[in-house]
Amino acid sequence: MSGHLIGWVTAAAQDEDAFSDAALLEAMLHFEVALAQAQADLGLIPPQAATAIAQHAPTFSVDPAQLALAGAHAGSPAIPFVQALIRHVAAHDGHAATYVHHGATSQDLLDSALASCAKACIARLQASLLQACGAAQSLARTHADAPMLARTLLQPAGITSAGYKCAQWAQALARARQRVLDTAGSALAISLGGAIGNLAAHGDAGPALRAALADKLALTDPGFTWHSYRDAWIALATDVALAAGSMRKVAADIALMVQAEVGEAAEPSALGRGGSTAMPHKRNPVLCLRVLAATQPVPGLIANLLASMPQEHERALGNWQAETSQYPAVLLHATRAASALAELLEGLSIDPVRCRDNIAALRGSVFSEPLAALFGPALGKTDAQALVSELARRAQHGTGEHLLGLAVEQQHSNPRLAGLTAREVEAVFDVDRAAQASARQVEPMLSALAGMLA
Amino acid sequence: MSGHLIGWVTAAAQDEDAFSDAALLEAMLHFEVALAQAQADLGLIPPQAATAIAQHAPTFSVDPAQLALAGAHAGSPAIPFVQALIRHVAAHDGHAATYVHHGATSQDLLDSALASCAKACIARLQASLLQACGAAQSLARTHADAPMLARTLLQPAGITSAGYKCAQWAQALARARQRVLDTAGSALAISLGGAIGNLAAHGDAGPALRAALADKLALTDPGFTWHSYRDAWIALATDVALAAGSMRKVAADIALMVQAEVGEAAEPSALGRGGSTAMPHKRNPVLCLRVLAATQPVPGLIANLLASMPQEHERALGNWQAETSQYPAVLLHATRAASALAELLEGLSIDPVRCRDNIAALRGSVFSEPLAALFGPALGKTDAQALVSELARRAQHGTGEHLLGLAVEQQHSNPRLAGLTAREVEAVFDVDRAAQASARQVEPMLSALAGMLA
Amino acid sequence: MSGHLIGWVTAAAQDEDAFSDAALLEAMLHFEVALAQAQADLGLIPPQAATAIAQHAPTFSVDPAQLALAGAHAGSPAIPFVQALIRHVAAHDGHAATYVHHGATSQDLLDSALASCAKACIARLQASLLQACGAAQSLARTHADAPMLARTLLQPAGITSAGYKCAQWAQALARARQRVLDTAGSALAISLGGAIGNLAAHGDAGPALRAALADKLALTDPGFTWHSYRDAWIALATDVALAAGSMRKVAADIALMVQAEVGEAAEPSALGRGGSTAMPHKRNPVLCLRVLAATQPVPGLIANLLASMPQEHERALGNWQAETSQYPAVLLHATRAASALAELLEGLSIDPVRCRDNIAALRGSVFSEPLAALFGPALGKTDAQALVSELARRAQHGTGEHLLGLAVEQQHSNPRLAGLTAREVEAVFDVDRAAQASARQVEPMLSALAGMLA
Amino acid sequence: MSGHLIGWVTAAAQDEDAFSDAALLEAMLHFEVALAQAQADLGLIPPQAATAIAQHAPTFSVDPAQLALAGAHAGSPAIPFVQALIRHVAAHDGHAATYVHHGATSQDLLDSALASCAKACIARLQASLLQACGAAQSLARTHADAPMLARTLLQPAGITSAGYKCAQWAQALARARQRVLDTAGSALAISLGGAIGNLAAHGDAGPALRAALADKLALTDPGFTWHSYRDAWIALATDVALAAGSMRKVAADIALMVQAEVGEAAEPSALGRGGSTAMPHKRNPVLCLRVLAATQPVPGLIANLLASMPQEHERALGNWQAETSQYPAVLLHATRAASALAELLEGLSIDPVRCRDNIAALRGSVFSEPLAALFGPALGKTDAQALVSELARRAQHGTGEHLLGLAVEQQHSNPRLAGLTAREVEAVFDVDRAAQASARQVEPMLSALAGMLA
Repeated sequence: MSGHLIGWVTAAAQDEDAFSDAALLEAMLHFEVALAQAQADLGLIPPQAATAIAQHAPTFSVDPAQLALAGAHAGSPAIPFVQALIRHVAAHDGHAATYVHHGATSQDLLDSALASCAKACIARLQASLLQACGAAQSLARTHADAPMLARTLLQPAGITSAGYKCAQWAQALARARQRVLDTAGSALAISLGGAIGNLAAHGDAGPALRAALADKLALTDPGFTWHSYRDAWIALATDVALAAGSMRKVAADIALMVQAEVGEAAEPSALGRGGSTAMPHKRNPVLCLRVLAATQPVPGLIANLLASMPQEHERALGNWQAETSQYPAVLLHATRAASALAELLEGLSIDPVRCRDNIAALRGSVFSEPLAALFGPALGKTDAQALVSELARRAQHGTGEHLLGLAVEQQHSNPRLAGLTAREVEAVFDVDRAAQASARQVEPMLSALAGMLA
Repeated sequence: MSGHLIGWVTAAAQDEDAFSDAALLEAMLHFEVALAQAQADLGLIPPQAATAIAQHAPTFSVDPAQLALAGAHAGSPAIPFVQALIRHVAAHDGHAATYVHHGATSQDLLDSALASCAKACIARLQASLLQACGAAQSLARTHADAPMLARTLLQPAGITSAGYKCAQWAQALARARQRVLDTAGSALAISLGGAIGNLAAHGDAGPALRAALADKLALTDPGFTWHSYRDAWIALATDVALAAGSMRKVAADIALMVQAEVGEAAEPSALGRGGSTAMPHKRNPVLCLRVLAATQPVPGLIANLLASMPQEHERALGNWQAETSQYPAVLLHATRAASALAELLEGLSIDPVRCRDNIAALRGSVFSEPLAALFGPALGKTDAQALVSELARRAQHGTGEHLLGLAVEQQHSNPRLAGLTAREVEAVFDVDRAAQASARQVEPMLSALAGMLA
Repeated sequence: MSGHLIGWVTAAAQDEDAFSDAALLEAMLHFEVALAQAQADLGLIPPQAATAIAQHAPTFSVDPAQLALAGAHAGSPAIPFVQALIRHVAAHDGHAATYVHHGATSQDLLDSALASCAKACIARLQASLLQACGAAQSLARTHADAPMLARTLLQPAGITSAGYKCAQWAQALARARQRVLDTAGSALAISLGGAIGNLAAHGDAGPALRAALADKLALTDPGFTWHSYRDAWIALATDVALAAGSMRKVAADIALMVQAEVGEAAEPSALGRGGSTAMPHKRNPVLCLRVLAATQPVPGLIANLLASMPQEHERALGNWQAETSQYPAVLLHATRAASALAELLEGLSIDPVRCRDNIAALRGSVFSEPLAALFGPALGKTDAQALVSELARRAQHGTGEHLLGLAVEQQHSNPRLAGLTAREVEAVFDVDRAAQASARQVEPMLSALAGMLA
Repeated sequence: MSGHLIGWVTAAAQDEDAFSDAALLEAMLHFEVALAQAQADLGLIPPQAATAIAQHAPTFSVDPAQLALAGAHAGSPAIPFVQALIRHVAAHDGHAATYVHHGATSQDLLDSALASCAKACIARLQASLLQACGAAQSLARTHADAPMLARTLLQPAGITSAGYKCAQWAQALARARQRVLDTAGSALAISLGGAIGNLAAHGDAGPALRAALADKLALTDPGFTWHSYRDAWIALATDVALAAGSMRKVAADIALMVQAEVGEAAEPSALGRGGSTAMPHKRNPVLCLRVLAATQPVPGLIANLLASMPQEHERALGNWQAETSQYPAVLLHATRAASALAELLEGLSIDPVRCRDNIAALRGSVFSEPLAALFGPALGKTDAQALVSELARRAQHGTGEHLLGLAVEQQHSNPRLAGLTAREVEAVFDVDRAAQASARQVEPMLSALAGMLA
């Protein structure tokens, strides 16, 4: 499972891959150094041992592919890692080597290192969500009043404003970011429980050591052993998954808007992006593609993580180990999606003229609800709806008449509608006026967002 | 999908089923009455209309099976529900009938009613989680000092205390409860957006109406339209799923403990429970079974909900409608599991004698880690571990000798161990002393829990 | 989980619900009667006992809601069912009652009864798939030559024919049907293993009894005990899920085609379908909605079934019991989707004029690939593609020129293209000719399908 | 997502990773060479072009990490791959370069290459399944008559034989292998549809070209374009998932059997496997761990693949691209699990003495069903069961009496049981005799398996 190519959808530059071999090995090494230092600070091991471990750590190196294989053989990559590190330190200082990984268990090492990597990944995710949110706010401001079709069940349903839609996207992204922020604190925690999770090796100093280590690693002190209690850790993954779901919603909306037949928006273009090997005219929505493809697997990965929660007794047989690939996958998929979404929203162009053209193409039928409301008092609700339905059907399927014309005709000819004026009928079909119900909400939404993101 | 029998695992008495037809219909009716009243309060419809709607609602009834079929035909059960309610009110007061469901859309009705049902369901879940947590605390207190095998990868790994294990269960359940509590506020919200989600029908009064309606229905005012933005709503489902995962962890531990060959715990017995049609001697762990079976489907249901999040534009085609079964299923499964878990933990008996027997059966090998630590200073870490591994192997697979005897023999015969006394060796094998590292943590854990549940 | 309303998406008339309480109870009763008869036939129990059981079975009745509750208490609804049946028979014939459920275990009863219900459900599914497939074939025949845009990544990519698309749908549905047919044989099997799965109670007659019972119940004799080996049974569910996936693909295509802005197809209309409570002009694609909503949960349900496969030893604790709801849900969702899809395809109208309009709206850019191929020999592949890309850009974003005009202009003015004639350039833009590559495949595809469905 | 370490559970030697970058790149290159050759054979391109492409292919190389990044930018790694290959060939032969990838689309290339890799992966999977199956058969033969507790709901339920259990494992693995074999044929197919899936670029020669290319690549000719019809391809993944589920069942059984308190089986030991960094005495079941951890994620991955099936029109936006990681993951996880399971079963030792000890520890209660059957004729079924239940309770919870003693006592003292002899009572408790109902089925099962695997 180590191929770059099968993972192309979430490909990232080496230094942007928070769970790369290099990043994970560095975090593992950092754990061992910090553990020894924290133990020395608390008088649990000789200070010289901690110093020697810290001194020799930088020259330690292992081949990740070999370590993974050795881990599969041993039941955890932390086992051969610690053995190799002990050998490395022992080559310089045999006494110090006996204090490497003192009182810790392999799960402490692996979980803590994964939490460190996760922290870096979450930081990238949050930055991209913020960037995407900012871009959506900007679009909302620009197009606050621009009339656009609202669509329910993929059919035209009324007039909204493009800015209102973008403001809703921004709100969803802001909620996603906030949720991740709220959960990350308790999730990004060190693991320190020792062999059976009761910190026995450290006597009364256990809690103090855990706190000191958390401090050194810039992770949270969870206050308990989470070897087989994964709820706080997985809670972060589910909140990331909710963010992925919201990003997918935004990208799905855009993918529908950039359809050639709709044309209300266009992806930013870039050299070499969205071309086709076979079709010179194609402009493929590659950024939408990346958000959609990167978020697609998240639900199943979350199902796997949730299904792995019943971890037996003090350390699980299988369910914990399975997490090592599934958990990073959730975070990486969401983070790469967020990066693409930020780029997409920052470069998205919305075409207000085409938005109006699409409204016009419906020949007024989208105004049948307010028209029925206008006719309601005079005709009664049921009769008004029946009449307007009939007129709308003629406008949609007939000979190209506009519903406005048919409505004015009714207002003239139907004595029960004599109380209405042509101007009142025309006002119903005023696109800009119709967009106002949405448009006027944009400013308060942006204000609220500003507070939320402050 | 209406069978009681295929749903036997989560069967509940009629009045305990928060999403029953009766409960959902009542919530739908309540929405329409409250909507009219809130609109009358704000001067949006005539007060008499609201009064008439409220007056005639109690005599309204529909056949749920027919309504479901009509809903499948129409694309939403809210459509025929509203039609039927309008006919019902119109039979008494034609004018009032025109104000039924005024300015609302069918999704407003269905989402709000589901949120009301969800609120009742969550209340039951929380009560059962609290009860289960209390029972686990009680077990923790009773067995705080009782030595018990700790097991990692399903193998004996050291000595913990039964109370420590129970306190960890209690903590996990308390965290689960807290997480649901934190999320429920924003999730259990009314839906009120109107046809295209911008509250257009109510002019400037939209937000005030939404707030007033939320108040009447004792639900939250979300502050936005969530027709196609499901994140806050689904966030509650994922937190419930995390609770289900933690419940499943506890039940899985207990199921392993009640194995005949382990025998460290026993389910509460009840007439007719756990018997077998074919085997008179069987005592099946039916409460474990119920927790395990009820929580099993939750991960896949969550995958479905997460996958349904990309809801197109202003109302989704398919993804929203699919939620109507999957969302309640998550809450119901978790709630029935919690009820069974509470009963299980309240009646669970732990057998401290059998716990000690299981330790004794290992003939001391479980103490090899501290024994190696004792021998370490004299022999060096590596030699000490090698020697103890060899002795442990002889104790486990040999002729029945106890590791203690083999260790004392070494201490006598090995000149490098001459600095140790037999008493020091014996102390290593003191089961009660070994349990203390876990036992002494129980009291602080219970104190912390008391604060958390206050 | 017994509500009709939360299950509205898959609502079916009572006699079409293959897993209704009535259907399952009948299947359970049928199992007990057939078991006794088969045992009597083989001389394993007295013939009079079998006769009495058969005689009194028709008057046996239980309340399904009560039975479900009793099942939750006992750990299986089969336990109280058998107890009640024994009491019922005993009230008439005490001796015969002792032979009820003889040598069987509660899982034998429940699994066999579920297999009977599944068989009825699969029959409906297959019938609807066949009907849908037939309708798609018919559309393929009618529109074999009708030019239609092909779309990749949701963007226009070339010219195909509407009939070719429909023929592909038909093929996918035919493959789905065939796959289910192939698997159903081994999956729809009786369960008969007795208390621990070795048919011990029947001595050497076990296999003969299993065969005889299978014969009486019109189910397969699996040849082994599948109490905790669920692979053949779940294989049917995964093949049904693949059918659901293909149905969803077809419905998703149609949902995109019926968008107002695309308008290449229209759902069949029916009184009361697709209307909106708020919007009189709306024509919602309710049949698409039903297919999409009914198939949406299938992936997560399958994840649950696959995750439940590791069933401990001779009968599982939790994983088997969880299946009772998840397995029927897969079959019911797919079956209701198939019914809606059949109705959708039988009534689907395709609009060849609008298809041509959509092609025309692109002003020739969709022909840029063949145009580049035409220019290739003269200009070289790279230059040809660059030139055509530039012309296409002008056609798409410019002042309304058609790519044909721009191409003819090039052919006139560019000396390197002097070897081409205007007619050759025009031929590239011949929509009907372009559709032929797809169109000519329709007939062979229909022939192949005829063989496949025979 | 390119780390070796986060994928340690499924780590494999480089040449055993069927989807490694090297393997996939080779398959992609092989596709382009074979395509040109097949086209030359059919007279579609000049023979010299095909020769040149084949000649220069071996010296083509790209950096996989860079290609993945370029793929993310372009929307498919096939696009920059083809561009680079064209440049490479053009550097030697400009004319030949224009025939690289002629008439194919990037999806043709990527899908076909993935199918080639999948074929290699499936071959490994099948070999390991066969090996595991053979080992289970061998265990079945050796322990055919060895009495062992049968367990239902994790509780002792009767006497089976160890060999019968192993024969059931073997059958499940054989069925899994057969199912994959049956599906692989149609799934491991080339993709060749061209830009819009109708093979337009090849005129009438399309089907012949597809057949010729399939032949050269040793893949199936699917007979249709599967760009957006993924059913046959994913059907292989679901059958692999069923295999994974059955492997997980076997490993879960073994993990329970090797518990120290059960001790009926032991994993093969190997240097460095199953040790613990902290606990010298531990013998961790690492092969069980690997099977369990490698199969755990499969259900969620399958949910992702099923959810990706609705692929829009002629090529999907997002759902297809997401497959590129999820599909290989299913195959790789299952293949690594099979490899571990083969090693586990080949080295598994079953301890018949411990099996008998575990039976004996129950003091006869496991024979209560046959004892009740023995007493039945004399006491009536109900009274017999009540009496035996009472005796079993005394044996299980009392002062150490064996049920046999209590039963003989009853036979002596209860006048209604006077018709029985002590020998008849004793025969009920004959462990070897009890195992025979299972034991005698082993030989026929092995014979049937031999036929199935031939």
